[in-house]
Amino acid sequence: MANLQEQGIMGIQAVRLDDENNALVILDQTLLPNEKKYLSLTDQKEIWEAIYLLKVRGAPAIGIAAAYGAYLGVKASRAVTYEELYADFLKVKEYLASSRPTAVNLFWALDRMEQRLKREAGKDVIEVKLALKEEADTIRQEDEETCAAIGRYGLSLLKPGWGILTHCNAGTIATARYGTALAPIYLGQEQGYNFKVYADETRPLLQGARLTAWELQEAGVDVTLICDNMASIVMKEGRIQAVLVGCDRVAKNGDTANKIGTSGVAILAKYYGIPFYVCGPLSTVDLNCRTGEDIKIELRPGEEITHQWYARPMAPEGVKTYNPAFDVTPRELITAIVTEKGIAYPPYEKSLPAMFAE
Amino acid sequence: MANLQEQGIMGIQAVRLDDENNALVILDQTLLPNEKKYLSLTDQKEIWEAIYLLKVRGAPAIGIAAAYGAYLGVKASRAVTYEELYADFLKVKEYLASSRPTAVNLFWALDRMEQRLKREAGKDVIEVKLALKEEADTIRQEDEETCAAIGRYGLSLLKPGWGILTHCNAGTIATARYGTALAPIYLGQEQGYNFKVYADETRPLLQGARLTAWELQEAGVDVTLICDNMASIVMKEGRIQAVLVGCDRVAKNGDTANKIGTSGVAILAKYYGIPFYVCGPLSTVDLNCRTGEDIKIELRPGEEITHQWYARPMAPEGVKTYNPAFDVTPRELITAIVTEKGIAYPPYEKSLPAMFAE
Repeated sequence: MANLQEQGIMGIQAVRLDDENNALVILDQTLLPNEKKYLSLTDQKEIWEAIYLLKVRGAPAIGIAAAYGAYLGVKASRAVTYEELYADFLKVKEYLASSRPTAVNLFWALDRMEQRLKREAGKDVIEVKLALKEEADTIRQEDEETCAAIGRYGLSLLKPGWGILTHCNAGTIATARYGTALAPIYLGQEQGYNFKVYADETRPLLQGARLTAWELQEAGVDVTLICDNMASIVMKEGRIQAVLVGCDRVAKNGDTANKIGTSGVAILAKYYGIPFYVCGPLSTVDLNCRTGEDIKIELRPGEEITHQWYARPMAPEGVKTYNPAFDVTPRELITAIVTEKGIAYPPYEKSLPAMFAE
Repeated sequence: MANLQEQGIMGIQAVRLDDENNALVILDQTLLPNEKKYLSLTDQKEIWEAIYLLKVRGAPAIGIAAAYGAYLGVKASRAVTYEELYADFLKVKEYLASSRPTAVNLFWALDRMEQRLKREAGKDVIEVKLALKEEADTIRQEDEETCAAIGRYGLSLLKPGWGILTHCNAGTIATARYGTALAPIYLGQEQGYNFKVYADETRPLLQGARLTAWELQEAGVDVTLICDNMASIVMKEGRIQAVLVGCDRVAKNGDTANKIGTSGVAILAKYYGIPFYVCGPLSTVDLNCRTGEDIKIELRPGEEITHQWYARPMAPEGVKTYNPAFDVTPRELITAIVTEKGIAYPPYEKSLPAMFAE
């Protein structure tokens, strides 16, 4: 994606390290599309809150933020010995891991940082700190390459002129670059595919309206914003030839946790006979998780439904709410899972582990 | 529903005539739940706008508003002869009929007013005007009785303790009183059924959050507000034993136009094996409409998605939108249609006309 890489939306980095100032720099995604503001986060509490409050979001971007967060936490440590440094790392790791429970990339990135730390056992703390920086940089760089590969594999499933529905935001700002579900769309845009994208607004936090519609519009993609409950009518009217979504955790059997509402879109796609593709890096596949039943679903405050974004409350005071941030799409509704190593088809309990083996 | 009738939420009249002041008095539903404000509408343009802007809404309530609107238009006429009065009526009828295209009750009520007008042929204009007032009053009164009957029939389908999902607002403020889809819930509340109701917020205009959650909470019903895209997870988790929705137009074959998103809920209910009931008066059944293909779907401004209710825009400037106000649920997804004459089961092209014959 050479054309897109250096300019416009692809020039934006949602998560990066400012090593000189000991800061994690993020694009505050809660302010988009009205304001493009970068935050410089220097302490762990700020990083934790940025993840919890979705200022940085998207499973891959959360992983990158956690990796840099862990590095910065260790960098600030006054430990003299490797063992003291390791103890400080574990505190940072545990703290950051508590920010959001569902996206596995958070734990994956922190585990990977710990593995690297283990490999540096016995070295001087300065060397160890440098190694951790290198590891976090590698995680970021690999994610970019991973997304580009997902774009290529994903595009092979699509035809020019197709209408594509997406839910939430699995775009460039949810990753190091290119996105997961949006990567095939960006690559297709470079190659003149002229996709017509329908973006579910994605209540309650409106990632589709605020982020996906904004990203795609910035890149010149033909995008139409709809409410979540309009997915059925646009499918019925023949406007949609494929659904592309990202993922926060994929179980070994293919059950997929993603933004709340994804399972509903998958059921609609099945009903209308439209292929439903999940796009994500292998770091999102959790082979330790047997099925979707084992995935912990984050519950968030009801104010996100009743108050957030609004000029005044949009529900009666004190009303009960239920606000799960994710749901699990059962494997039988998923046509294929697009990874950086290729496209996994059912049965996923065979095809997914095979991807890791390659 | 004697207990509920005289007090609290059932004491509210969303649409009534103030004959002394030549006004249609409506509860401004766009201000709920924050403000309970009644508007006194004296000219046709105000009434047209109140319907178009959903200040008065709900298929039955729109019908009542149109009937009173037609009466007030004719009452203000300076016509001396019956023929002149009829000509003035037709102007008012045509104008009010242009306010919203999908709900058939609007046309049904205006047609019924015209039929009454025809029956008064040749009479003194003062007598004719009084007859039209009587007809509009009858439409209002019959709607109340109709809703009570729908409540009784609907309740016969439900069991105590059930979880019930509803979409949009088909409650007391959408009708003369009691509502359609909510009538069985109110009746069950009187009888100690202890339903657990889940209200879809119903984007973009949030009738579920602002109106249904408010109505039910006022009546002491156990109600939980969810985003539209959470219907799938609450069904999956076993929280829902039945879906109840209203309707804006039912075709002869049972295809049902209702608030956007209803068809998606019906597809989910089918997938999870949950009964899906449509509740509405026979005035909503349009036997002249063969199938859902013949129902005109109202498209509304995109600002309802991108700007309305928000403290600031929630989508990038100039983004394309698609905002159909209704969708059509195909008959094969509808378990039964609950009317004031009884419960219609498939095949609807036989059971629905039979209801009219009784």
